[in-house]
Amino acid sequence: MTQRGALQVAVIGTGRMGADHVRRIHEVTSGARVTAVVDVDPERAKSAAAGIDGCTAYTEPAAAMAADDVDAVLIASPGPAHEAALLAALDQDLPVLCEKPLTPDAASALRVLEAEQKLGHRRVQVGFMRRYDTEYMKLKALLDSGQLGRPLMLHNRHRNVASPPGFTDAMLINDSVVHEMDVTRWLLGQEIAAVNVLRPRPSDHAAEDLADPQFAVFETDGGVLADVEIFVNCGFGYQVQAEAVCERGTARIGDGHALVTNAAARWGGTIAQDFVERFEDAYDRQVQSWVDATRRGEVTGPDVWDGYAAAAVCEAGVRAQSEGRRTEVELVRRPALYR
Amino acid sequence: MTQRGALQVAVIGTGRMGADHVRRIHEVTSGARVTAVVDVDPERAKSAAAGIDGCTAYTEPAAAMAADDVDAVLIASPGPAHEAALLAALDQDLPVLCEKPLTPDAASALRVLEAEQKLGHRRVQVGFMRRYDTEYMKLKALLDSGQLGRPLMLHNRHRNVASPPGFTDAMLINDSVVHEMDVTRWLLGQEIAAVNVLRPRPSDHAAEDLADPQFAVFETDGGVLADVEIFVNCGFGYQVQAEAVCERGTARIGDGHALVTNAAARWGGTIAQDFVERFEDAYDRQVQSWVDATRRGEVTGPDVWDGYAAAAVCEAGVRAQSEGRRTEVELVRRPALYR
Amino acid sequence: MTQRGALQVAVIGTGRMGADHVRRIHEVTSGARVTAVVDVDPERAKSAAAGIDGCTAYTEPAAAMAADDVDAVLIASPGPAHEAALLAALDQDLPVLCEKPLTPDAASALRVLEAEQKLGHRRVQVGFMRRYDTEYMKLKALLDSGQLGRPLMLHNRHRNVASPPGFTDAMLINDSVVHEMDVTRWLLGQEIAAVNVLRPRPSDHAAEDLADPQFAVFETDGGVLADVEIFVNCGFGYQVQAEAVCERGTARIGDGHALVTNAAARWGGTIAQDFVERFEDAYDRQVQSWVDATRRGEVTGPDVWDGYAAAAVCEAGVRAQSEGRRTEVELVRRPALYR
Amino acid sequence: MTQRGALQVAVIGTGRMGADHVRRIHEVTSGARVTAVVDVDPERAKSAAAGIDGCTAYTEPAAAMAADDVDAVLIASPGPAHEAALLAALDQDLPVLCEKPLTPDAASALRVLEAEQKLGHRRVQVGFMRRYDTEYMKLKALLDSGQLGRPLMLHNRHRNVASPPGFTDAMLINDSVVHEMDVTRWLLGQEIAAVNVLRPRPSDHAAEDLADPQFAVFETDGGVLADVEIFVNCGFGYQVQAEAVCERGTARIGDGHALVTNAAARWGGTIAQDFVERFEDAYDRQVQSWVDATRRGEVTGPDVWDGYAAAAVCEAGVRAQSEGRRTEVELVRRPALYR
Repeated sequence: MTQRGALQVAVIGTGRMGADHVRRIHEVTSGARVTAVVDVDPERAKSAAAGIDGCTAYTEPAAAMAADDVDAVLIASPGPAHEAALLAALDQDLPVLCEKPLTPDAASALRVLEAEQKLGHRRVQVGFMRRYDTEYMKLKALLDSGQLGRPLMLHNRHRNVASPPGFTDAMLINDSVVHEMDVTRWLLGQEIAAVNVLRPRPSDHAAEDLADPQFAVFETDGGVLADVEIFVNCGFGYQVQAEAVCERGTARIGDGHALVTNAAARWGGTIAQDFVERFEDAYDRQVQSWVDATRRGEVTGPDVWDGYAAAAVCEAGVRAQSEGRRTEVELVRRPALYR
Repeated sequence: MTQRGALQVAVIGTGRMGADHVRRIHEVTSGARVTAVVDVDPERAKSAAAGIDGCTAYTEPAAAMAADDVDAVLIASPGPAHEAALLAALDQDLPVLCEKPLTPDAASALRVLEAEQKLGHRRVQVGFMRRYDTEYMKLKALLDSGQLGRPLMLHNRHRNVASPPGFTDAMLINDSVVHEMDVTRWLLGQEIAAVNVLRPRPSDHAAEDLADPQFAVFETDGGVLADVEIFVNCGFGYQVQAEAVCERGTARIGDGHALVTNAAARWGGTIAQDFVERFEDAYDRQVQSWVDATRRGEVTGPDVWDGYAAAAVCEAGVRAQSEGRRTEVELVRRPALYR
Repeated sequence: MTQRGALQVAVIGTGRMGADHVRRIHEVTSGARVTAVVDVDPERAKSAAAGIDGCTAYTEPAAAMAADDVDAVLIASPGPAHEAALLAALDQDLPVLCEKPLTPDAASALRVLEAEQKLGHRRVQVGFMRRYDTEYMKLKALLDSGQLGRPLMLHNRHRNVASPPGFTDAMLINDSVVHEMDVTRWLLGQEIAAVNVLRPRPSDHAAEDLADPQFAVFETDGGVLADVEIFVNCGFGYQVQAEAVCERGTARIGDGHALVTNAAARWGGTIAQDFVERFEDAYDRQVQSWVDATRRGEVTGPDVWDGYAAAAVCEAGVRAQSEGRRTEVELVRRPALYR
Repeated sequence: MTQRGALQVAVIGTGRMGADHVRRIHEVTSGARVTAVVDVDPERAKSAAAGIDGCTAYTEPAAAMAADDVDAVLIASPGPAHEAALLAALDQDLPVLCEKPLTPDAASALRVLEAEQKLGHRRVQVGFMRRYDTEYMKLKALLDSGQLGRPLMLHNRHRNVASPPGFTDAMLINDSVVHEMDVTRWLLGQEIAAVNVLRPRPSDHAAEDLADPQFAVFETDGGVLADVEIFVNCGFGYQVQAEAVCERGTARIGDGHALVTNAAARWGGTIAQDFVERFEDAYDRQVQSWVDATRRGEVTGPDVWDGYAAAAVCEAGVRAQSEGRRTEVELVRRPALYR
């Protein structure tokens, strides 16, 4: 399916993430253009399509996918809508970039896994965009090089200024810690075998029904211990850090010390206030990489198995969190397609 | 001249920089494509055009500029060829991105300045790409914000692993320090009024006829003192740093501490080995910004006056260097077009 | 007991730590001198006393303590000998600085606690010297200031180049993690209520019967969660770091970035290779502080309760480690003398 | 003159520095005690002696030096009083630690140099205490090791929060930059051969008749170029930094990053507000080192030649500053005693 012209992309969902992807493909990405936008709200769809030549607004994903000028699909609708859109795209054998989560639970992720296996080749990439962050990429390259020896532990920090209203303990796992779950699996090339979630006395700045911060501990099937401080009301910034402890050394990312000032009796710098500032380049790189691979007729990046495994680890995490004990992760056998 | 389709670019010169720009526009830049490449060597031109649909190879810049499918020109030929190409493009009223230097000396830069004035509107952007580096952009924004008060001094470091054979004292100024000249003018919004160049006893690692490192001192018309350590055989890496000292604080960029390791009795990280690693994003951003502005019918970025002023400061710098004394910079009056 | 002359100190034990304390009091400490050294090995005692005017060698602690020219006692003998020496000193009502551990287990520590209570006033300081490290002191001051709000979590790293032969899993807790136990209690002003110890697959560089690294998790009675990476064969250096996560910010110590070099494609610095390099100043400050307080007739610094609590937490830690589960710490009620 | 008892020190001058030295020797220094204090103001002398057993107050340096219980002299009186005190001490053949400056000008320094030569052996140490700062010591050791190759340039920053009333341009050189003069000479083991002093437009926060900041450039007789940013009204802190640029790498000290916080959208730490906080350890180490050497019958540390050379470089610096041009330093031939 190698193609010379620009990749024609249908973007499904035009909320915050979807609208941002429309803008990205239109203004930033090389070799792609948005030819379709889909939203259940026809007005929102029309408004998203408005500024873009040759872009049609739809309310049904299937209609967009059936259009002649659609080569590929970017799914950015709410999580519960992913499964139907994914199955429709696989039915049409269309390349897909699906925002995380693949689907909201392991059972539905498994259905997508089975559909893709039935199709017989990979078509879906999942939007774990941290894999496209230059710092994580450097850390991964360093670990893969073997210079520091075998990884033994991974310390993660994940901090947000404040959580939105209605944010729950389960969302702390499913929406936030899920990134560290994927990063742990990807950096180490190992599956997470068990999860525990500990809670200190909560910060007074968290909503009353949210225990924030929490401390998750993963055990991988390769014997690595990964811990995650998740603190979504830290107040001071958006901060994502990781330190890998290996047999011969450690490596840390996320300090973010680009501009250093001296002023008013303090040295230091500013901290990013949201994920856009911290990971914008990773989002750009993710979509460019997906477009480039798709145009070459290839599928790269995190796949449906990664999406399924994350869903299964999240389920174990939420159970560990609510039952207050170490919980093992249950995974089906990894299909040959994803090895 | 606002346009909806992709910007059709002729790239003049297909050496290292030109070939890299061809690749960039083809693979990275959104909203542009290479429709013409020009090189005095017809084989090299053909080879540069080979992988790109709809791209024609030329040996004459004027021929490419006359083509129907050329909207804009990127000049990446050797410096001495710039003047003719710039005058031809201005003659055709075509938007230009011209790699630095604008031209090799102040007199020729002045001729380009006059040609653009005669045309009556700005068409030319000069490739001082550090202005598109995120760290320099943050430093500029901080200085412009006034938070730290008025700038008083600017300390710059500019280090290369090793200089190529044949690198001369004059090239140290014209090819290397010229970046700090532009950065100083841009960060401060002031002209450089005088230059001095001091030389310690040279490093044994420099070629015999090259005095390396050197230490340049600029005085601006706003009374700021800027110093530049230029060391093109430092051996350990490519490193560009700047610290602005203001009335209420200082700000420093260029530490480059993304990945920090502990290993073998040392903490720290790697240093970039060339400008591509350090400034690749700035090159990408520069071209994207030029394409975006051009498609909107605008001209932004460093202009012909900036190119002329850099040439005049370089001339003063080379004279200071060879005569061993503080040398004043001579500039014509700034034309209204560039105010 | 305020005194004007130099404090006359008997140092008990002249092994590595004892000999170092003799040197310290002789050469570094102001207002004190070594008038007695005690070692079961008479030759070693004599050799330790040799270079010091007016210093007598003993083989029995009690004999030294009974001497007229002994005002205070520094115990640096092996842990199992501490109880007897402490009880003898308390019997003589002599001020004591006792190297950690106070005693090897909670039961014996309790006997010392009771003896001191019976005496009716505090005489003993325990050698948890990290409390005298300037970085820990700054961290403590910052936490106590309330600027960052209430502490919620404490992340600790404790790394040694290599463990000595015969180092066991229990020693990992009793000799190494004990420092983080004390630091956690001291920084937070809270008792540790439960301990868990997790083990990743061990490093190949650890001795066969040692599981290294390990990961300890403390829960305090104030609801703070403290984790400790203990890695005694990290290979690259001696590194002690702590990050307190509070309601409004975090604070980290232990980066140790005094001298930063650029060389051979890397920026960074050296890492201390042992605790002497990292904590020498803390040892000096501890002894000076003890001498100054003793001369003023006061007792400051970590007390017998701190020594007892550390012993009790260690016992819980070793049990957690061997049984592989969270273990609660059992403490007697805190006597009024130590409130 | 090796001695076993405590060194009996007369402290001359009991202003801020002198009083601090009295306290230091009384409370911090091992092996020394203050037996005499001298001040032209008898009340101040008495008050300084008050808390110290066996300490006599004098108004005449010579009287203190003649006392039986005085072994050594620490001169901390105002600079103009140094020469007489130094000559009196040399007359008595007493070891001296003299606060910087040795004397206020090169001519008087030369007289002290001649007096010590006539005595035939060295007795005087000058209080350039940065040589006892651990960071400078590490930098010196690294340069001496030859690891980074030959030094080529030295970049220095010297910043104070605010200058006291009455601070003049000449004091900027004589009181502040004099430290960098000594540090440059000491780090490199070279003499300063010429000085230039440049001035940007002054900060609005400096007093009206003070041009602050300034930028000094030294050329050494070994061909090294050293520059100094001196900024005594920087507002944000007391900061002393140095970066040596060598043939194979660079080394920087003075970042001072012990405690790193994240709070209120910023990462970073506090900056020392005065030299006591930054250099207190260096002062302690300097005096201890002088006491130890003196008790061993040795003279170490910066000597009269260092004091004389600093005075000569200062004179050249003040001339360069007022005449606005590069000025050569004139030195007598170095006497054999100081080689």
